[in-house]
Amino acid sequence: MPGPIVTLLTDFGLQDNSVGAMKGVILGICPDAHLADICHGVPRQNVEAGGFLLERTYRYYPKGTVHVAVVDPGVGGKRRPMAMRRDGHLFVAPDNGLLTAVRAHSERSDEDICVELSDPAYRLAHVSNTFHGRDIFAPAGGHLAAGVDIRDLGPAFEDPVELPLQEIGEMGDRGVWCHIVYIDVFGNLVTDLSGREAAHLESVWGEVWMTAGEVSIGPLQSSYDAVPVGEYLISVGGFDRVEVSINRGSAHQKLGVGYGDSVLVHPRPSELA
Amino acid sequence: MPGPIVTLLTDFGLQDNSVGAMKGVILGICPDAHLADICHGVPRQNVEAGGFLLERTYRYYPKGTVHVAVVDPGVGGKRRPMAMRRDGHLFVAPDNGLLTAVRAHSERSDEDICVELSDPAYRLAHVSNTFHGRDIFAPAGGHLAAGVDIRDLGPAFEDPVELPLQEIGEMGDRGVWCHIVYIDVFGNLVTDLSGREAAHLESVWGEVWMTAGEVSIGPLQSSYDAVPVGEYLISVGGFDRVEVSINRGSAHQKLGVGYGDSVLVHPRPSELA
Amino acid sequence: MPGPIVTLLTDFGLQDNSVGAMKGVILGICPDAHLADICHGVPRQNVEAGGFLLERTYRYYPKGTVHVAVVDPGVGGKRRPMAMRRDGHLFVAPDNGLLTAVRAHSERSDEDICVELSDPAYRLAHVSNTFHGRDIFAPAGGHLAAGVDIRDLGPAFEDPVELPLQEIGEMGDRGVWCHIVYIDVFGNLVTDLSGREAAHLESVWGEVWMTAGEVSIGPLQSSYDAVPVGEYLISVGGFDRVEVSINRGSAHQKLGVGYGDSVLVHPRPSELA
Repeated sequence: MPGPIVTLLTDFGLQDNSVGAMKGVILGICPDAHLADICHGVPRQNVEAGGFLLERTYRYYPKGTVHVAVVDPGVGGKRRPMAMRRDGHLFVAPDNGLLTAVRAHSERSDEDICVELSDPAYRLAHVSNTFHGRDIFAPAGGHLAAGVDIRDLGPAFEDPVELPLQEIGEMGDRGVWCHIVYIDVFGNLVTDLSGREAAHLESVWGEVWMTAGEVSIGPLQSSYDAVPVGEYLISVGGFDRVEVSINRGSAHQKLGVGYGDSVLVHPRPSELA
Repeated sequence: MPGPIVTLLTDFGLQDNSVGAMKGVILGICPDAHLADICHGVPRQNVEAGGFLLERTYRYYPKGTVHVAVVDPGVGGKRRPMAMRRDGHLFVAPDNGLLTAVRAHSERSDEDICVELSDPAYRLAHVSNTFHGRDIFAPAGGHLAAGVDIRDLGPAFEDPVELPLQEIGEMGDRGVWCHIVYIDVFGNLVTDLSGREAAHLESVWGEVWMTAGEVSIGPLQSSYDAVPVGEYLISVGGFDRVEVSINRGSAHQKLGVGYGDSVLVHPRPSELA
Repeated sequence: MPGPIVTLLTDFGLQDNSVGAMKGVILGICPDAHLADICHGVPRQNVEAGGFLLERTYRYYPKGTVHVAVVDPGVGGKRRPMAMRRDGHLFVAPDNGLLTAVRAHSERSDEDICVELSDPAYRLAHVSNTFHGRDIFAPAGGHLAAGVDIRDLGPAFEDPVELPLQEIGEMGDRGVWCHIVYIDVFGNLVTDLSGREAAHLESVWGEVWMTAGEVSIGPLQSSYDAVPVGEYLISVGGFDRVEVSINRGSAHQKLGVGYGDSVLVHPRPSELA
């Protein structure tokens, strides 16, 4: 029987030994775990971006996978460490909104549960102030992988911290407001507008355009090469979200638009005039 | 029995979640796969450099390993996705020349086969335009690891795209032309002249020198420390290819020589005069 | 039964294929090995920093783990390649002091042994001059993981190279001298003063302060947020060592203090005046 799968997602980067120490802890508790890195390049302390990457990735893993996610600006403070069962997967994370996106984009079920990681039996013997990834979250992930019931890790609770999910605006006369939720390594600006929503707008409007900074870009393209090198485009990318890009360039740098900024999605401008 | 081994080589980098999503897909299909990263730092869209790294690395893995390689500037266009059996290994890649080097440096056999990844049963249900690594190549790799016969993935074909392999020039009066095929993280310029070829030239010429940019460097050294810090040297490096280096410096930066450039390999200059 | 665990720690980075080639060699010898990266971002050729990271991490892995560590400025020269059993773990490394920290911070036992990796049967058939990580160390790690007795790899020896461990100074009138042994990705300056030693000094002095460069910083804080953004602090970090930090900044850059530099730990300055 294949070993249990445990993924890791952090903002620790790979230069230091932090991720390597977490893997040791997990393998010490569950030696046949299959470890897989989702990524460790989450922008430092950006809980929303980390939650976005986790939500967009966990569903590609099989049910039963344990996901250990640590983006934790409040480490050592009062935020709860938690584990969650949702959508047939198990998650271990600080209770700071890192799991908001997973909850928002998955179905409720009677199996859902959130527990506080309060039982010291499932932590390392010495818990540091600054590295709960190794001392609290990795042990919890290892024990879940080894078959410990999530209810054994600590008491259940009903009120996980929720990030204020920015609602995509109602479609008004001039369009809908979306938000930049991730900036990838190439400077593509990823919005929270899904491919399905974009297709709906296209069916209503004929063409979907976006105004980011002071630039209007459209209509939706199906690949970067649809525009000349150096030009802007919008497309539904690998995240299944509408992205603002420059063919072989960085839209992030050129537009000066970044995390949390709003962009307006609207019909072809000439039709508005 | 140990699980099947699946390697990954891409130009995606490790900052985003792309590689993490591919691993999820593979483990979802073949939960006992042993995943190993060859590397994800292939220079962006540099098919030749990716092919070089793959060819120089796959042979260190045991026969039967599945190698998923994605450097794919034509994603979403007309290039075929393919799988190949060669030299006892299985490869999954875009048919854009990424596997040229593997074919060029391995023995033919009756077991060789190339197939197009056309059967939708071995892709994800939804295939995006921009991320075939996750939606086509990772599933194919997972199914091969899980024991699916390569012939089941799609129809065989005989004409994989071949990169125009630069032939090392014939040895003329003044020497032979070689090419820069890889630049490593330290700025060492790796040529396509093998250690065996260099030894042959040394036996004919007495000494092997190289002229790169406007600098003549030689003879071959066996380690960086054979020259003072900051000085050029040429040596047969870990790739078993002649490299141009600076002891504790970057030959790439200082010489201004890069991918695809030619360098002349020749006898000691005074003997030419 | 879970496969044996093999960790890797190098200064090779992840851009090139070096680590990927080492993994192939290990899996070729021991196909059911569970590979885990400790880290590959050790500062280039910094044996002391590599040894520090290895010592601070290996203990989080279960007994019996094989650790392959390569920071090897003398590759191709006369330094011995070695394997060591210590503290129930197995280590493979160049004999250049990389294992000094592990020996210094673990208990002696009758099981301890160091052997030279001299038997060609446990190396690759072709050993390059510049990449012993792949050609000597990875094969030795693979064979140990596969169950080969450490004594079979080569003759035992008693005199491994020892880095001159900097002793923390005796507590004098003005304090004790410590040293910077690691600089993490955020520019935190990690000293060799342990959390236990710091607690002892605190009990004697009331407050622990540190002078780094020309700046006096103290007393010890328990989290970064205890001081305003941009201000210095000292704390016992995830390494269980006293660190000099700036809340959301780089103490390394601002202080100009680096590897091997000394810092003075002392009581509150006004009490000295």
